[in-house]
Amino acid sequence: MTISYSDDVAKSTTWNFFKLLFRWKGSLWKVLWAELTLWLTCYTLLSLIYRFLLTDAQKLTFESIVKFWANFTGREFVSLTFILGFFVSLVISRWWDMYQSIGGTEKMALHIASYIEGDDEETVTIRRNIIRYMVLVQAMVLSKLSHPVRRRFPNMEALKTAGLINDTELHAMNNFESIHPKHWLPIYWAMALIKQARKDEKIASDTYVIDLYSKLSDYRGGLGKVSSYMSVPIPLAYTQVVFLAVRLYFVIALIAEQYLLSGNTKQPEIFVKFAVDLYFPFATVIQFLFYVGWAKVAESLFNPLGNDDDDIAVNNIVTRNLQIGLAIVDNAVDKVPAQIRDPYSN
Amino acid sequence: MTISYSDDVAKSTTWNFFKLLFRWKGSLWKVLWAELTLWLTCYTLLSLIYRFLLTDAQKLTFESIVKFWANFTGREFVSLTFILGFFVSLVISRWWDMYQSIGGTEKMALHIASYIEGDDEETVTIRRNIIRYMVLVQAMVLSKLSHPVRRRFPNMEALKTAGLINDTELHAMNNFESIHPKHWLPIYWAMALIKQARKDEKIASDTYVIDLYSKLSDYRGGLGKVSSYMSVPIPLAYTQVVFLAVRLYFVIALIAEQYLLSGNTKQPEIFVKFAVDLYFPFATVIQFLFYVGWAKVAESLFNPLGNDDDDIAVNNIVTRNLQIGLAIVDNAVDKVPAQIRDPYSN
Amino acid sequence: MTISYSDDVAKSTTWNFFKLLFRWKGSLWKVLWAELTLWLTCYTLLSLIYRFLLTDAQKLTFESIVKFWANFTGREFVSLTFILGFFVSLVISRWWDMYQSIGGTEKMALHIASYIEGDDEETVTIRRNIIRYMVLVQAMVLSKLSHPVRRRFPNMEALKTAGLINDTELHAMNNFESIHPKHWLPIYWAMALIKQARKDEKIASDTYVIDLYSKLSDYRGGLGKVSSYMSVPIPLAYTQVVFLAVRLYFVIALIAEQYLLSGNTKQPEIFVKFAVDLYFPFATVIQFLFYVGWAKVAESLFNPLGNDDDDIAVNNIVTRNLQIGLAIVDNAVDKVPAQIRDPYSN
Amino acid sequence: MTISYSDDVAKSTTWNFFKLLFRWKGSLWKVLWAELTLWLTCYTLLSLIYRFLLTDAQKLTFESIVKFWANFTGREFVSLTFILGFFVSLVISRWWDMYQSIGGTEKMALHIASYIEGDDEETVTIRRNIIRYMVLVQAMVLSKLSHPVRRRFPNMEALKTAGLINDTELHAMNNFESIHPKHWLPIYWAMALIKQARKDEKIASDTYVIDLYSKLSDYRGGLGKVSSYMSVPIPLAYTQVVFLAVRLYFVIALIAEQYLLSGNTKQPEIFVKFAVDLYFPFATVIQFLFYVGWAKVAESLFNPLGNDDDDIAVNNIVTRNLQIGLAIVDNAVDKVPAQIRDPYSN
Amino acid sequence: MTISYSDDVAKSTTWNFFKLLFRWKGSLWKVLWAELTLWLTCYTLLSLIYRFLLTDAQKLTFESIVKFWANFTGREFVSLTFILGFFVSLVISRWWDMYQSIGGTEKMALHIASYIEGDDEETVTIRRNIIRYMVLVQAMVLSKLSHPVRRRFPNMEALKTAGLINDTELHAMNNFESIHPKHWLPIYWAMALIKQARKDEKIASDTYVIDLYSKLSDYRGGLGKVSSYMSVPIPLAYTQVVFLAVRLYFVIALIAEQYLLSGNTKQPEIFVKFAVDLYFPFATVIQFLFYVGWAKVAESLFNPLGNDDDDIAVNNIVTRNLQIGLAIVDNAVDKVPAQIRDPYSN
Repeated sequence: MTISYSDDVAKSTTWNFFKLLFRWKGSLWKVLWAELTLWLTCYTLLSLIYRFLLTDAQKLTFESIVKFWANFTGREFVSLTFILGFFVSLVISRWWDMYQSIGGTEKMALHIASYIEGDDEETVTIRRNIIRYMVLVQAMVLSKLSHPVRRRFPNMEALKTAGLINDTELHAMNNFESIHPKHWLPIYWAMALIKQARKDEKIASDTYVIDLYSKLSDYRGGLGKVSSYMSVPIPLAYTQVVFLAVRLYFVIALIAEQYLLSGNTKQPEIFVKFAVDLYFPFATVIQFLFYVGWAKVAESLFNPLGNDDDDIAVNNIVTRNLQIGLAIVDNAVDKVPAQIRDPYSN
Repeated sequence: MTISYSDDVAKSTTWNFFKLLFRWKGSLWKVLWAELTLWLTCYTLLSLIYRFLLTDAQKLTFESIVKFWANFTGREFVSLTFILGFFVSLVISRWWDMYQSIGGTEKMALHIASYIEGDDEETVTIRRNIIRYMVLVQAMVLSKLSHPVRRRFPNMEALKTAGLINDTELHAMNNFESIHPKHWLPIYWAMALIKQARKDEKIASDTYVIDLYSKLSDYRGGLGKVSSYMSVPIPLAYTQVVFLAVRLYFVIALIAEQYLLSGNTKQPEIFVKFAVDLYFPFATVIQFLFYVGWAKVAESLFNPLGNDDDDIAVNNIVTRNLQIGLAIVDNAVDKVPAQIRDPYSN
Repeated sequence: MTISYSDDVAKSTTWNFFKLLFRWKGSLWKVLWAELTLWLTCYTLLSLIYRFLLTDAQKLTFESIVKFWANFTGREFVSLTFILGFFVSLVISRWWDMYQSIGGTEKMALHIASYIEGDDEETVTIRRNIIRYMVLVQAMVLSKLSHPVRRRFPNMEALKTAGLINDTELHAMNNFESIHPKHWLPIYWAMALIKQARKDEKIASDTYVIDLYSKLSDYRGGLGKVSSYMSVPIPLAYTQVVFLAVRLYFVIALIAEQYLLSGNTKQPEIFVKFAVDLYFPFATVIQFLFYVGWAKVAESLFNPLGNDDDDIAVNNIVTRNLQIGLAIVDNAVDKVPAQIRDPYSN
Repeated sequence: MTISYSDDVAKSTTWNFFKLLFRWKGSLWKVLWAELTLWLTCYTLLSLIYRFLLTDAQKLTFESIVKFWANFTGREFVSLTFILGFFVSLVISRWWDMYQSIGGTEKMALHIASYIEGDDEETVTIRRNIIRYMVLVQAMVLSKLSHPVRRRFPNMEALKTAGLINDTELHAMNNFESIHPKHWLPIYWAMALIKQARKDEKIASDTYVIDLYSKLSDYRGGLGKVSSYMSVPIPLAYTQVVFLAVRLYFVIALIAEQYLLSGNTKQPEIFVKFAVDLYFPFATVIQFLFYVGWAKVAESLFNPLGNDDDDIAVNNIVTRNLQIGLAIVDNAVDKVPAQIRDPYSN
Repeated sequence: MTISYSDDVAKSTTWNFFKLLFRWKGSLWKVLWAELTLWLTCYTLLSLIYRFLLTDAQKLTFESIVKFWANFTGREFVSLTFILGFFVSLVISRWWDMYQSIGGTEKMALHIASYIEGDDEETVTIRRNIIRYMVLVQAMVLSKLSHPVRRRFPNMEALKTAGLINDTELHAMNNFESIHPKHWLPIYWAMALIKQARKDEKIASDTYVIDLYSKLSDYRGGLGKVSSYMSVPIPLAYTQVVFLAVRLYFVIALIAEQYLLSGNTKQPEIFVKFAVDLYFPFATVIQFLFYVGWAKVAESLFNPLGNDDDDIAVNNIVTRNLQIGLAIVDNAVDKVPAQIRDPYSN
């Protein structure tokens, strides 16, 4: 389920945005709490060991190591902001395009309802089945790509049970020998129904046929695009680089950001840093919120067909496509209210 | 209401841009004054406490804390400029696409006026109602998404009162059982009217029908896109990261940017910083203008259908769509001036 | 007038690009000289006051202030490069899209000349008037948006004088009651003429009508896009942030970059900076060229329909559209050279 | 073969992303191990020479050199992150566009199966051959661009052996004299077959012909785009700049990041850096992972038709296009399951 | 001629990319050697003057100046990487769009060959001349924009000699009075030929005419886009800013990067820098490679129709368009191999 909150910031006061901080679902806090707890635990353990278990000599060595690594955090490290900036931009543009490509049946249903005329059983069945075939192919494609859809429709039997395909059709599909996925087959059936409707003069013009075909083709193309995005992801090495960069930064920070007991060093810069004996790494926790939080945004949008809070509710989309598509082609046809002049005309 | 000022900088002199600084509506000052006042008040309070209430020992501790946090402001902090740069780019591209997708009736009206011929009552009503249905669906969709439109049209009754839907139609709509929104229904009615007009030979060709359908479909698609942008916003965690980054920076700056009385420190860098005993944090206020100002740009464009100065005047768009659409299909039809040769021909 | 210089760098030698530096029109120098002179004058005045008017005690205070502000210039200031980078990218993409959307009559004229057949007075007038109406609507829209076009066509009378609209048409337009702009009216007339031509069998096919309509619609859509860009500019606060950031940087630099007499300070870093007693702030002037120059690029493209050197020559476009459009539909029709076999055939 | 792993991060837990680190194919480790080993070997050799072979005087010189170059690594060097950020963005957008442009036969096959009617031998052959010609032209174009396809189809003979072209056709192609590639010829044959089918009334309407032509044209256009991307790559100098920047950085680091024995220097900054006597350049290896890893992403996507793990499996695409295309036009035609009412209707 | 090298990096090994460094044409070295040599000469001269000609007092002054400017190089200077990053992105996106817009005749030729039927002299001439007119208009437009094309076709006479236009046509073109370019005239002729072919029933359907017209229109639109890019370049001031920023950086570096004899300064930072007495400015030369190399990429793509190694081979495109276009419409027509069943069918 995507998390909608646009409405809460209709008026962009700071107060409205501030309230957003107290949401849990899909929030920074929800994605971060586990990792942050782990990090703080490790940090505290290290700190306790240093303060209570180490001998003075060991403390000196430890402090040397801390000072050594402190040189590589902050601005001396690889520039996390940019790596994340470029990566998040890429992930977000892919996520949005994927979301836009999943496709709905509403447009097709409106055109079918308008182009394919007739109230007899056969025509009604044709109209309904075209919609059903569209939803069937969507369910078939998405069950290959999306965990939640796969759980709902683990195999063709499940689709049959759900009423998306019947015995005859399943038989026909199984009879069709091909080592490749047969996602195109229901699309072909829909096209054949349209062709038949044209032959039976249920569709008034060849150009209407082309219009319906092109809408079907866009729908299939959108699903193909979603497939492409899923099967050809951002190269693994890129994802690894970003994941590693962020996580290693904080592994190093575990040591580098330890507060040292001995502030009596001669280097003025270092001095200020370690002058205040603190126990909680405020600054690093703030960095953690930003960097890991930002990385989490990318990670949760990486596979937008999954189970994350921000992921697209694909199962709902499939259900909605079937219900609204059937409703349109079935009930609406030719039921237009009597035309009455509007009150604005003079 | 969006704030137009392009005309004031037709000639891009510095003076023209300078004058922009003195505008209030939609300005940096208007979005910033409240927060800036709050920040300055807190800063002054802290400063007064430090100077007049603390003992010398407490002052030393306070100064330590100031020096500690001073290490994390400025360039050592998370790079605000980039986070904001990437985020603002994303928000602005969504905002512009949303604005472009809201749709108008002008194009459709021109084509209806041209394609659907006849001056009899029935034809005129058809033409007017197609436009009305388009505006109706826009009002229905936007009342789900936009505060100002929701205030104007809180329910279907309000739409009836406004004359966008009549009793018969409202009845038909309520009769149609569906758990999903019925935004497509007026679109379907419009398509059915076009189909009827074609059957009655009011439209001369099938290809004209397809042309009208595709314009209707684009219009519906635009509204669908606006819906998508509103219901699938930028992931919450991303917005939280940006909001937090900017606000926490200035919470830290409250302490870190305090001017210290004791300039007699030994560190040369720090020395210069605290050498001038100042009372007003000029530099931080300047940073506040930039960072919070920039963040505010993103925040006010985040929900462009809301109440901010820069938000799209959606109610005006709905009204204008109805008025201009009806004006075109009603008055203009077949009223072309007598054709006279232009003065350029030889 | 846009400044064309692509041809001068056909061969991308450094010498060719170097020569570009000596151009005046649209150049960095032209946009910068006034502001730079002002800045240098202020800088010199401050410098003279410091060196000759201040007492020694005052000098010390002044130097403290200089050193204080010197901490906030250079890399410690808000990152101008990024703010400018993101802003200039946004402005340039809007500018280019606007330029591409202004539209020409050439494409339409070629199709009119081809589709609408006949050499009789009536047909010729139809062809010419469609073009004239297109130019008329362009002039009407642009006179709302662009200073130079507004100066040329301040009102409908001016359009009549220019021959873009005649009395009958102006009368018809005035008779049409609407509180909204009537830019669509000439488009409607053009559509009505096309429809009439189809009815009189001057156009051979319905699909040709749709083709002409869609070209008209694209043309109108382009003008609408230009309107959108002008009436919904980049949010004011964003422009203010960028303008302020750049200008404040150099106001601060007026003080911060003063050369100090007393080089005998103890801080090593500062020492080098003030060791050479210079009178001219070379480095800051170079920064001025870059930052203010870059900001000026954005500012002059901000309203590309204005009077800047780089602005689009909208008046020329209007004139050209009329002349070339009329020339095509009038003279060219059916004047094809006798077809002779080309020399390449064997 | 592209590496699919989207499914493994359906739930974006850190653990799921962490597991990605242990994959080998297409991973950071696989692309980096050779170069990293080489770098570490050189580093160790230099280190051993410095520690055991050099005299004290030589050591001093060596240390001077190390300190000298140490000034140019880290943040003082050219900003690798940005150069890489911009370059990788460019490479990725080209890679993705290329991948989307390679084209499939599925869409065309569905339309052929629907538009071209008849079960006689001639019609079946026409349908099959149109698909075969499409695959033929893809194989011809890709064998010019892609190593793996070239290995599979080194010449026209290989295409004949593979059954993509027969003797008659090869003869016809050879007879056609042209110094330019003849990739368009099979496309033309396909168009001619469609035209013939229309003449023989196997295709019911002229608009269907245009629909088929436009799909063929898109297919050809996609292949042309792939050709463009391959023959007009990112300018060589840009690639060289990026390659050099990353590699030179680590050549310099070989020296600059050597740990020095003499920590007793007077400069405080340097002191901390060399205080810990370490043997393994942890920090530089981490930088190596990020910078070279990121560069490798760009390098392996640079030519996505090659042999890298992340490259597109072009040979599979060609095979799949033939199999699925033929399957659709051959078996599917007119085999629609008997239409049964779905279980949702009431 | 663009430089193709994608094939050499089919396997993205470091070795393959390393070999790219040794290419000359279009390489970094070729674009840089002259400027680098000049820079090194100036640098050496300055160095020699300082070491051998200056008195000790002058040396001290010189060293002061060096130290002064040294503060403004490196990270203290304007951020070259970003300015270049944004600028190169802009130039590359314009370059690629321009390249894609130049247009070919292949698509049009295939459609002409298919739509315009007949083998008589007149029909063949029509087909050939449409192609010739397309190439003619391309040559006319490009000779206005591109040096190499202008050299080949300096005037209309040269086009006549080349056989692209004959006497009758040239006469007709000259007779047509217009102060504007007449690039549209050959397009109009081509449209008129298509119209004539339709009237003579050589084209079977009106929709085919529209299809041909739209392809012609796209072709003309592409050339218009190229014209736009050339006549409305990136604003001059922007180009000047980038050019100046890069070049001034290295003019300053001439002084700032001089190695000083007197390393015995007290400032620790400076000390390390000047500790090693070196004669060759390694680090600055490396920066030169990156910054000037990157700027050169932008500069050579700035006018992609020029004479640079990376520029588009426009003359070849014109020639190829004529040859392949004529070959298709002439030889190919109706020469389809006898249809034989493929070996895959069972």
